[in-house]
Amino acid sequence: MAPPLEAPEPRPERMHFDTPLPLRSGAVMPAYELMVETYGRLNAERSNAVLICHALNASHHVAGCYGGDDKTRGWWDNMVGPGRPVDTRRFFVIGINNLGSCFGSTGPMSIDPASGKSWGSRFPVVTVEDWVDSQARVLDRLGIDRLAAVMGGSLGGMQALSWTTRHAQRVAHCVAAATAPSLSAQNIAFNEVARRAIASDPDFHQGNYYEHGVVPRQGLSVARMIGHITYLSDDAMASKFGRSLRSGELTYGFDVDFQIESYLRHQGEKFSGYFDANTYLLLTRALDYFDPAGEHDGNLAAALAPATARFLLASFTTDWRFSPERSREIVRALLANRREVSYAEIDSPHGHDAFLMDEPHYHDVVRAYFGRIADELGIGEAA
Amino acid sequence: MAPPLEAPEPRPERMHFDTPLPLRSGAVMPAYELMVETYGRLNAERSNAVLICHALNASHHVAGCYGGDDKTRGWWDNMVGPGRPVDTRRFFVIGINNLGSCFGSTGPMSIDPASGKSWGSRFPVVTVEDWVDSQARVLDRLGIDRLAAVMGGSLGGMQALSWTTRHAQRVAHCVAAATAPSLSAQNIAFNEVARRAIASDPDFHQGNYYEHGVVPRQGLSVARMIGHITYLSDDAMASKFGRSLRSGELTYGFDVDFQIESYLRHQGEKFSGYFDANTYLLLTRALDYFDPAGEHDGNLAAALAPATARFLLASFTTDWRFSPERSREIVRALLANRREVSYAEIDSPHGHDAFLMDEPHYHDVVRAYFGRIADELGIGEAA
Repeated sequence: MAPPLEAPEPRPERMHFDTPLPLRSGAVMPAYELMVETYGRLNAERSNAVLICHALNASHHVAGCYGGDDKTRGWWDNMVGPGRPVDTRRFFVIGINNLGSCFGSTGPMSIDPASGKSWGSRFPVVTVEDWVDSQARVLDRLGIDRLAAVMGGSLGGMQALSWTTRHAQRVAHCVAAATAPSLSAQNIAFNEVARRAIASDPDFHQGNYYEHGVVPRQGLSVARMIGHITYLSDDAMASKFGRSLRSGELTYGFDVDFQIESYLRHQGEKFSGYFDANTYLLLTRALDYFDPAGEHDGNLAAALAPATARFLLASFTTDWRFSPERSREIVRALLANRREVSYAEIDSPHGHDAFLMDEPHYHDVVRAYFGRIADELGIGEAA
Repeated sequence: MAPPLEAPEPRPERMHFDTPLPLRSGAVMPAYELMVETYGRLNAERSNAVLICHALNASHHVAGCYGGDDKTRGWWDNMVGPGRPVDTRRFFVIGINNLGSCFGSTGPMSIDPASGKSWGSRFPVVTVEDWVDSQARVLDRLGIDRLAAVMGGSLGGMQALSWTTRHAQRVAHCVAAATAPSLSAQNIAFNEVARRAIASDPDFHQGNYYEHGVVPRQGLSVARMIGHITYLSDDAMASKFGRSLRSGELTYGFDVDFQIESYLRHQGEKFSGYFDANTYLLLTRALDYFDPAGEHDGNLAAALAPATARFLLASFTTDWRFSPERSREIVRALLANRREVSYAEIDSPHGHDAFLMDEPHYHDVVRAYFGRIADELGIGEAA
């Protein structure tokens, strides 16, 4: 195999938007900023753009490293880059940090110009649809009328799906992995428990903790631990950790005995050190609220009727958060609308997390799909 | 159908034990008390006793009501009583509140005679095996040499299983529902997150909150919410709550929007009003630690080799906490030992909670099994 190709160092850009953004809630977001990162080159026809939508804890930083530091590698670097399934020698790839997130775009930590203080709990609840509308403005700014593809996994897949109905004429292809047309009661339940863990942390201060110089780390840590359990399959946890003990014997106490406890605590602590609790609330709420079929008496086909894109859906056999059945719901609705749909149910032990992992069959499917798009567009390797 | 029979009002009894109890941890429990409740009458041969072992949040109060108040109905009243599957007109049934629990038996809330203060965090970690040994002393006190059956569901099923090896000669039959031979990594993970939620509540005070006149209600509430999700099946949640909204429309906030949120918050608040947080820690730890095969290089058949009882195992198709496969592990190990085993895999939508519910097929199986025991013993209806 050829050695992996390293992308040029990405340069995140902060884009300022002065036109207020009407939100689904009825509120209006005044001037705001979005962090944007791009990879590859926009071709002369401006036809090779791919928008990557991120899930809960990711950002605009999709691929590559900053300053050659491997620790800063983008969250979907195995998928996007030169020679990767979404090949940046052919495609111009765009990553955007969602409004309300905590990686540089305007969010609860930002200063609300109206008050001169952090938005905190006053930051409006944003939805998948609001994000999609704000992303469309980034495309306008970049001079891109139509996307070769919009792509995302999990919550990112919901955005990709929403793009195909909300801005149907601007999307040629939609690639959505490990996603669902809405959350189930159990999904909402896990989100709600995570939010309660955050809100009951005394350092939360009703969301205005910035003013108190504290962060609700304990609550956010518990929230992340809950989330993490749902990202991994039961089997993956069993094979990775099983009942292994950290020190070889039981301590008969409540500190860490089992490796799985150590792993989860570590994940919780790490996450709570860099993620914003209010953003966690906002992003889980956007997940809860996404339900295109809900506005059509539960008829998903009716909700997706405006879509003209072609689709690739991928799901993973051990994903119990967004099971293959949830992807099949989308496939059935699209087929009912006589849309062109490819569907890959990937046999993977890695649960929901599989969409981020280097699963050969999954990557092969995505690579082939983007190869076809490139052929249609007549774009060869830029090199 | 005949009208349901009402049992005589049960009378809980507090039994005091002066002989110290050696625990698996190496610690020794000095004098302690256990709450005990019995139903029906011990026959002259003392051969008709059935011990019911409880799971996480239950107690010695298995059946019947206090003072005719239906709200005080025992936790397994649909299973145990006159005319019920475990018919107290034939069997003498015993309920015991486990050591470390919070319904009258000695536990973290009790006064440690050595210090004159509540045990709090100093209460020793107790195990399934310790409970079984303490229950054996209750049988000694009642003059019962051998049980017609030991029975339990979930954590109670683990105790029933442990009885068959630890006091093999004292058990004729073992009935275990919705149980497992050990927790999986995922099971431990959920317990650990629940414990972290409790321990990070500032009112927890490292387990010594009694001295501060507070209780870690918020943490305990979150812990219970997590547990509750794992008791219900995804399908049961979907059909009971789905995406129903409490007020008919989204509020674009973080208060209760969905019925499932309302339900979970209510469950959390209710539970945290009557259950003790330290007991929650102890009981989840006992679950984590139970692993008879672990002491035999993972060989469950070897671990169960001492058992001479006959067995009924029941599992529920949608129980994802202790799935049917975990019961089948026990069945296979017992069959490898040429033990007599009945196994019923009950088709139920109710998840783990099904073992507590009035599932007709399940109750029929248990009724038939106890009918056979009664026939063997030559005990007819007492009436």
